[in-house]
Amino acid sequence: MRLTTIRYEHGTRAARVEGDRLVLLDAVDVGAVLRGATDARSDGEEVAASDVERAPLVVRPDKIVCVGVNYRDHIAEMGREPPTAPTYFAKYRRALIGARDDISLPPVDVSTHVDWEAELAVVIGSELRYGSASEAMAAIAGFTVLNDVSVRDYQRRTTQFLAGKTFEGMTPLGPDLVTTDEVGDGSGLDISAEVDGVIKQSSNTSELVFGAVDIVADLSRIITLEPGDVIATGTPGGVGAARTPPEWMREGTVLRTTIARLGECRNVCVAEERRPDGRRDRMKG
Amino acid sequence: MRLTTIRYEHGTRAARVEGDRLVLLDAVDVGAVLRGATDARSDGEEVAASDVERAPLVVRPDKIVCVGVNYRDHIAEMGREPPTAPTYFAKYRRALIGARDDISLPPVDVSTHVDWEAELAVVIGSELRYGSASEAMAAIAGFTVLNDVSVRDYQRRTTQFLAGKTFEGMTPLGPDLVTTDEVGDGSGLDISAEVDGVIKQSSNTSELVFGAVDIVADLSRIITLEPGDVIATGTPGGVGAARTPPEWMREGTVLRTTIARLGECRNVCVAEERRPDGRRDRMKG
Repeated sequence: MRLTTIRYEHGTRAARVEGDRLVLLDAVDVGAVLRGATDARSDGEEVAASDVERAPLVVRPDKIVCVGVNYRDHIAEMGREPPTAPTYFAKYRRALIGARDDISLPPVDVSTHVDWEAELAVVIGSELRYGSASEAMAAIAGFTVLNDVSVRDYQRRTTQFLAGKTFEGMTPLGPDLVTTDEVGDGSGLDISAEVDGVIKQSSNTSELVFGAVDIVADLSRIITLEPGDVIATGTPGGVGAARTPPEWMREGTVLRTTIARLGECRNVCVAEERRPDGRRDRMKG
Repeated sequence: MRLTTIRYEHGTRAARVEGDRLVLLDAVDVGAVLRGATDARSDGEEVAASDVERAPLVVRPDKIVCVGVNYRDHIAEMGREPPTAPTYFAKYRRALIGARDDISLPPVDVSTHVDWEAELAVVIGSELRYGSASEAMAAIAGFTVLNDVSVRDYQRRTTQFLAGKTFEGMTPLGPDLVTTDEVGDGSGLDISAEVDGVIKQSSNTSELVFGAVDIVADLSRIITLEPGDVIATGTPGGVGAARTPPEWMREGTVLRTTIARLGECRNVCVAEERRPDGRRDRMKG
């Protein structure tokens, strides 16, 4: 099954994807469906997928957990040692955008070091605490696409990544939740990032040091996972910061993030403009 | 003005503190009051403060941001250099407990390295994006007490602190929000942690490298702050990990976290017990 979240009237609405049709569900987003607001198989009004905008797949996840240094090739290019435990950091929900939304570049006097990180994201379907591997697998609702767009100078200004990882409106999440009955444990999926038509990252989720099940079980020893939680599993090699010279995204850059059998995010980088009072607004149009 | 959040019927309820009486407000917690659910000055049913339990001051903050290495004495004891930018990491809301709740120790086979970190916490009162210093000050609702209880081996198993900072049910937050008209910008307040009756940390918030206003303005360049967001500003010297030999909290340890003019958290460390199926439950009684 594929579920999605669309913009609808003045808010958002969950839907089930049936080919190029969406069946509207009685829930504000996929997170609410996973929390049991409605039966994901229920009937409803249909709309054409091409007629609607995608919102972030989960609009207000209780947690967004990110894993760093978790692909063998990315670890090599960043000059790091293979990890003995998953490296976790967080993101706040205001970082999230929909699968076709613009990426909101920070003002150039804040940063121009904007980089891509294609990632497989896990979406939790049921509460889990101290889960075994099989319980962790059962707690996973499915998978989606995320790009952990990173502001590298903020990521590196201290030891902690958070600042560079949670800039507002920069992290595409979606378009669909594809459930585990279709894609198993999320391994064996080709993953790529394409920047202005050039493939920059190309790997397979089997290259993950810690797979989805490992991560979910480990996290559940720290804190209770709950329906709608999003876990980004890390990015493969080929990021802009590791290139010579480094490459950054800028106004108009088109970022396409694709995972086989899950779908793709396609996002255009859009600059903000300074308002007369010194603040910035999102540029219109 | 002092506001608090209590456990009430099957949920929580905001209240205004009037000496030893609490005036109930028509809002589920202080976060909801700050978002405008009700007038904090309105009349309501009164209860004796001693008759009720305190919930986490904000039950579901949109963000919990923590600042590391931010007191001059703690930086020295941890052997670090003074920072040029605030070090941010996150916590998830399930880490939070009330000002008198038990601290839920992890099972001993997960970790025994449980440490204290007394901190001044900022609570945001209005939305802020790209704020100047004066706008940042205006966006602060007030201050409260937080103890960033840390699981040191998890904090240090990778480069990123998050894992050791967000263990479930370990972070006291409260008891009251004291508004800026009473305590200004949060500087000049004595802060201490007392472990089983012995003062372990004793400093003053004027020792902060980055004060509340600096932090709030800086964060607002990364992401929009919103009412109810909680920002823990860092801890002074005297943590258990920096002692010789290191000191950890254990079953029955009493942790008292006090900030002058704000109040105190008093929390007892309670072990979990293993259930027959291998999971653990909070020990009763």
